[in-house]
Amino acid sequence: MITIDETHDPALESFIESANAPDADFPVQNLPLGTARRRPDGKSFCAVAIGDRVLKLRGAEESGLFDDLDAELRAAVREPNLNGLMALGRGPARELRLALSRLLRRGSSLESDTATIDHVLIPMDEVEMLMPATIGDYTDFYASVHHATNVGSMFRPDNPLLPNYKWIPIGYHGRSSTIRPSGTPVQRPSGQRRPDPDVDPAFGPCKGLDYELEVGLFFGGTHELGRPITMDEAEEHLFGFCLLNDWSARDMQAWEYQPLGPFLAKSFLSTISPWIVTTDALAPFRVAAPERPAGDPQPLPYLSGGESKAAFDVKVGAHLSSAAMRAHDQPHLRLSEASFRDMYWSPAQMVVHHASNGCLMRAGDLLGSGTVSGPDASARGCLLELTWRGRDPIALPSGEERRFLEDGDEVVLTGHCEAPGARRIGFGPCVGRVVDPNDRSAEKAADKATE
Amino acid sequence: MITIDETHDPALESFIESANAPDADFPVQNLPLGTARRRPDGKSFCAVAIGDRVLKLRGAEESGLFDDLDAELRAAVREPNLNGLMALGRGPARELRLALSRLLRRGSSLESDTATIDHVLIPMDEVEMLMPATIGDYTDFYASVHHATNVGSMFRPDNPLLPNYKWIPIGYHGRSSTIRPSGTPVQRPSGQRRPDPDVDPAFGPCKGLDYELEVGLFFGGTHELGRPITMDEAEEHLFGFCLLNDWSARDMQAWEYQPLGPFLAKSFLSTISPWIVTTDALAPFRVAAPERPAGDPQPLPYLSGGESKAAFDVKVGAHLSSAAMRAHDQPHLRLSEASFRDMYWSPAQMVVHHASNGCLMRAGDLLGSGTVSGPDASARGCLLELTWRGRDPIALPSGEERRFLEDGDEVVLTGHCEAPGARRIGFGPCVGRVVDPNDRSAEKAADKATE
Repeated sequence: MITIDETHDPALESFIESANAPDADFPVQNLPLGTARRRPDGKSFCAVAIGDRVLKLRGAEESGLFDDLDAELRAAVREPNLNGLMALGRGPARELRLALSRLLRRGSSLESDTATIDHVLIPMDEVEMLMPATIGDYTDFYASVHHATNVGSMFRPDNPLLPNYKWIPIGYHGRSSTIRPSGTPVQRPSGQRRPDPDVDPAFGPCKGLDYELEVGLFFGGTHELGRPITMDEAEEHLFGFCLLNDWSARDMQAWEYQPLGPFLAKSFLSTISPWIVTTDALAPFRVAAPERPAGDPQPLPYLSGGESKAAFDVKVGAHLSSAAMRAHDQPHLRLSEASFRDMYWSPAQMVVHHASNGCLMRAGDLLGSGTVSGPDASARGCLLELTWRGRDPIALPSGEERRFLEDGDEVVLTGHCEAPGARRIGFGPCVGRVVDPNDRSAEKAADKATE
Repeated sequence: MITIDETHDPALESFIESANAPDADFPVQNLPLGTARRRPDGKSFCAVAIGDRVLKLRGAEESGLFDDLDAELRAAVREPNLNGLMALGRGPARELRLALSRLLRRGSSLESDTATIDHVLIPMDEVEMLMPATIGDYTDFYASVHHATNVGSMFRPDNPLLPNYKWIPIGYHGRSSTIRPSGTPVQRPSGQRRPDPDVDPAFGPCKGLDYELEVGLFFGGTHELGRPITMDEAEEHLFGFCLLNDWSARDMQAWEYQPLGPFLAKSFLSTISPWIVTTDALAPFRVAAPERPAGDPQPLPYLSGGESKAAFDVKVGAHLSSAAMRAHDQPHLRLSEASFRDMYWSPAQMVVHHASNGCLMRAGDLLGSGTVSGPDASARGCLLELTWRGRDPIALPSGEERRFLEDGDEVVLTGHCEAPGARRIGFGPCVGRVVDPNDRSAEKAADKATE
């Protein structure tokens, strides 16, 4: 299922010039999918990003640009979001990718058809990105052994990694109702906290607000209740990936999470980057999963085999700016950089484990990777790890310091891929700013985002 | 919001005679809502149960029987399932209830209109019950202190109840994709288990299959991301209740659940009774929540106040038959009986806590109560408690014994309400039979249920 074809040729350029800039996230080799609408309140449509433009798939289909594609695929791209396309699985998505590549590259028949271009290629700043798909269920994994070990060390110094970790891709069900696209304001949640076990708990605004740098996987294809998915079949269900910020209220989490796991500490909001980079776009960046250290168990048979290049070398980063930094025109401070390739469990293993009990998976389901942390201190994907639970605050260029997020702080997650012989591609940012309760404009934006 | 009105008059009878039997679950005082279709594959419709008949709401609306109702309400009852009606909240549901009561009672104008009756009142055995609503998110609580104490005693003898239990309505996110209506075959899940910590874990069929006797709450009305719900507002969102069997794989649960909570041990299937008994039907059976024992903390202010009759005196039971019992025409064995009134946390407190961090609640969301166990040994709502983790097997009339569920076992959950001066009402059964893998007919039925 890893096919390197003409769509990956690094020499290809688009007639949309902005797509050809060396650091562009959306060159013609990427072609990520999303759901958009014209501001302020147009009808939603399936879209593809190319440079600083958005191709409206419904418009392109209506203009006859996809006449060579199957009727089923043409119907799917006319839908108001990506669920239909996701349900078709990777084969049709690959056909669409090839058609889009031929359409948007330099020298295509579309290049000279300015009337159609004006109709179907919209400036990105004229659209609002919506949720790419209706997410039936959201599951969050815990697949970075570095993250699990760091967090475990803080809470269980003698026993940081539980005995099941190296056998099971640990995960838990999350809340689908509160997943929002990049840019949605982050309202600090309130909840119960008990920082001092000798004092009764109290209800109030979270004092340990954190982000988590994750990668999200959208499930594609069809599946049936009661049927497991094999490692060989899993690849077909890896529709594509986004960035995911699993905002976390650490003080609420510490008090609530036993014995049934995180609940309100996570369910107030999760933010995703709105462009889904398809698994096929990531083909040149596939690598073998890291070898397990000597002494670690090998995965059980149901989690073994399948595609040998099971991992994805996506470089992900987290960046912070405070209100004071922005007031002084200081750029975002990079907090961490890690690679998604270093996860202990691969996306395919997460899918296979999830369905191993017969659990029904639906097109549009979102599987979070868990915080992507690497082996180095510079690769820790949340403040809990970076400040070691607040012990080691981070110095900001504004002279401030941070243990956890303050009102006005903005977190930007980024992701991109580079490899020899391949064109660089990016994910586009995943942005969230913690609402300053004194800033009425932010509040109004939050209201709007929930409509 | 607790209104006892003419619809609750115990003297009322229906012109559908089967509704007037003393032990009928669906007398004219009940009027539970569901979603049904004519077998084998009719179009789905909103329905009301009356005796052994089903009233087709769309048909009734089209026949002009609801002409006195608001246009919005009339549009909602024409929808293919209950989400629209649920979104309107309890006021419109109460209007609908009154209209239905007047329509279905003896002496109504409908009684003599046999043509319309034939069109809108369908024998129950001619319809298939579907999921009442599309469930956006499913959350399972842990609100019986008896259950939590029993289970805690097995796993942490010195510390059965964790310090947060009496402060927080403990809950966790569940899987919405695998909730199915009563009658759906139960396929024994496979998964990782490690019964002996000195031996490596293995993957295979669950050996500790259990049921959990729960009550489910459907959330109604509208809500916004970021807005908490107060105890005074909560009542408006209690749309109605069903029975819920939260099937559990105990051996898988023990190995997987730390540190993030139950996952695959629960997500293979949950079964609900298909008729939603509205909160207004339950008005005569509302009681004050049990007083907290001396020494227990009082709920924090955000979980205090609201409706004083916060609890619901629903008597729930679990019943088992094995294949051998059925072969000998032996009736189901009653395993437990308890009352939903004995829960430590009320449905309103569950709703308020859930939204206290700003988590968006949507009409159709399902909130499980957690296993309903009472203080007595006869009121333990799952085999884990009844057999004390398999130590004390249950003797069946067939001469068999049970620690956990065997293939061919059928579990029937029941619920009903009785109170002085009120007509008895029931929930209808919640049934699930564990598939015998050698029984091909069961497998075919399972295939059908997933279509």
